[in-house]
Amino acid sequence: MSIDHVLHAVDCLRGVTVRTPMVISAAVDERLGRRVWVKAENQQLTGSFKVRGAYNALVRLSDRHQGVIGASSGNHGAALALAARLHQVPALVVIPDDAPVVKRLAIEALGAQIVTYDRHRGLRDALVQELAHRHRLAVVPSANDARIIAGAGTVAWEMLQEVPDLTAMLVPVGGGGLAAGTALTATGHNPHLQVFGVEPAVADDTLRSLRAGRLTPIPPPTTIADGLGHAEPARAPFQINQRLLADIITVPEDAIADAMALLWRHYHLVAEPSGAVAFAGLLQATDRLPDGPVGVVLSGGNVDWTAYRTLVDIAMERIGDQPHAAPVLH
Amino acid sequence: MSIDHVLHAVDCLRGVTVRTPMVISAAVDERLGRRVWVKAENQQLTGSFKVRGAYNALVRLSDRHQGVIGASSGNHGAALALAARLHQVPALVVIPDDAPVVKRLAIEALGAQIVTYDRHRGLRDALVQELAHRHRLAVVPSANDARIIAGAGTVAWEMLQEVPDLTAMLVPVGGGGLAAGTALTATGHNPHLQVFGVEPAVADDTLRSLRAGRLTPIPPPTTIADGLGHAEPARAPFQINQRLLADIITVPEDAIADAMALLWRHYHLVAEPSGAVAFAGLLQATDRLPDGPVGVVLSGGNVDWTAYRTLVDIAMERIGDQPHAAPVLH
Repeated sequence: MSIDHVLHAVDCLRGVTVRTPMVISAAVDERLGRRVWVKAENQQLTGSFKVRGAYNALVRLSDRHQGVIGASSGNHGAALALAARLHQVPALVVIPDDAPVVKRLAIEALGAQIVTYDRHRGLRDALVQELAHRHRLAVVPSANDARIIAGAGTVAWEMLQEVPDLTAMLVPVGGGGLAAGTALTATGHNPHLQVFGVEPAVADDTLRSLRAGRLTPIPPPTTIADGLGHAEPARAPFQINQRLLADIITVPEDAIADAMALLWRHYHLVAEPSGAVAFAGLLQATDRLPDGPVGVVLSGGNVDWTAYRTLVDIAMERIGDQPHAAPVLH
Repeated sequence: MSIDHVLHAVDCLRGVTVRTPMVISAAVDERLGRRVWVKAENQQLTGSFKVRGAYNALVRLSDRHQGVIGASSGNHGAALALAARLHQVPALVVIPDDAPVVKRLAIEALGAQIVTYDRHRGLRDALVQELAHRHRLAVVPSANDARIIAGAGTVAWEMLQEVPDLTAMLVPVGGGGLAAGTALTATGHNPHLQVFGVEPAVADDTLRSLRAGRLTPIPPPTTIADGLGHAEPARAPFQINQRLLADIITVPEDAIADAMALLWRHYHLVAEPSGAVAFAGLLQATDRLPDGPVGVVLSGGNVDWTAYRTLVDIAMERIGDQPHAAPVLH
């Protein structure tokens, strides 16, 4: 795969997906001593970047199939439901039984059917295969697919259209599709541009796999970042990430909540926990990044209010009422 | 005044203020049966649109003065503090003693001095005049000034650059400067474009004044929309609003909190109460608007977390866990 696959996806998504804004905060820039651009994919259709990959995958779906099926922590499911609706095919979405209510409701409102499974029993893939076979549905994976990776890569393409001189980009890592798409796009644009994946420390399957040089499963993790609780990287993006990622940064759970609170305060943006992970990585590893402007993907904003309120509450206790730092001109 | 004053302000602000995004929600569009564009001025420098007017006013400040002074519920104060800092003059800001902590901290962090007053004693203007005289400071009003109105009008100019065929625009009304600037810009662009001002029902000084045909003070109101608690419209914008506003919509306090919750849920944007008022007006008066796409100004996002959490909590209880409506293609 190369940046050309991403450029095809850019064409395919034109007029369909939202070109989401890049936002800045003078207070954060002053605190970190650099210009930070936050790509607000919480303002994408379905509230996460996932629709880019799902739509791109479905455009090329063979018409032999009677519908689509995908397994998802929620955001890929809503994306698949919307893409299927736009292509007028039925969709079945397999989600964990502990997925956020808001994600479940979004999938149903988009007209897709839901089947739930127990995340800790590890039978998800078998269930998807069985349902796909029984109902003659095409499987659309959440990460392990070239078209999904290429669609995800359009986030970085838009960022670089707006700010071509980024020196580093940070993205959350679950299955690894966004990281792989970002790395393809970024290094195709400029081989010196460094792409960092960020994982919850308790769900560091990609870090371990990269260090080991092969896919290395961990027990099904429990993290507040419900979109990133993968036990193993997806194979296709992992091969790209092995080659092209600068490194993986891991963040503790409380740093994720702090990042949600800081995105609320300084950018006035709502991030779901998974959506705040890359920003948490930025705060944690600023001194490991090259000089110059950095881009951070806020990948989604789908979170139940009670969970959001509770996490930000705890974080605000911890980080306190900091005054805004003095802004600088851009 | 005309749209030409706004175009001058556009030139003056280029490279200084942020061109904030216009965002959409398929769920809201489906619910209201029309395309709604939300102009996210919560992502402006200092977290509100106010910096546009303050900077535009200070550019033309005579150098005889030894600094600037302004009275503000908070956002104009932070805007003035930033503009003064950029022009390297001292600033003094007069704010109510019950202003949100976050607004007070922002003004201080920007290097301005603060003097507080009791909102219910009505001595603000006398205090400002006395301090201005004693310290030889230039008074920069929050609304009653042609350059402030012209700066505020650049919000609408950006909206119309992006979506030229808007048929209606909704803006919050405090002193009336944003409404006047918006009306000048909108009607200069298209005489049929209708601009609606939205006020808290408990702070309806502009509605009463328009109905009476003259400035009509009310007792100092108490509203959760702390930026809009004016007892009387400012004279200069009122004369423009009398001529050019389509109408005033008033909204009850609980509708403002509901609008904050819906902006959180559907746009993943943080609005302060005053910043959510125009969106509340949209929900309330959709059937009074002409057909076609409408633009709504989310004017600011500066709110204390505890106040935000409490208001959205109550609103979520009231509006419940609505599923996302099915999105439509744009």
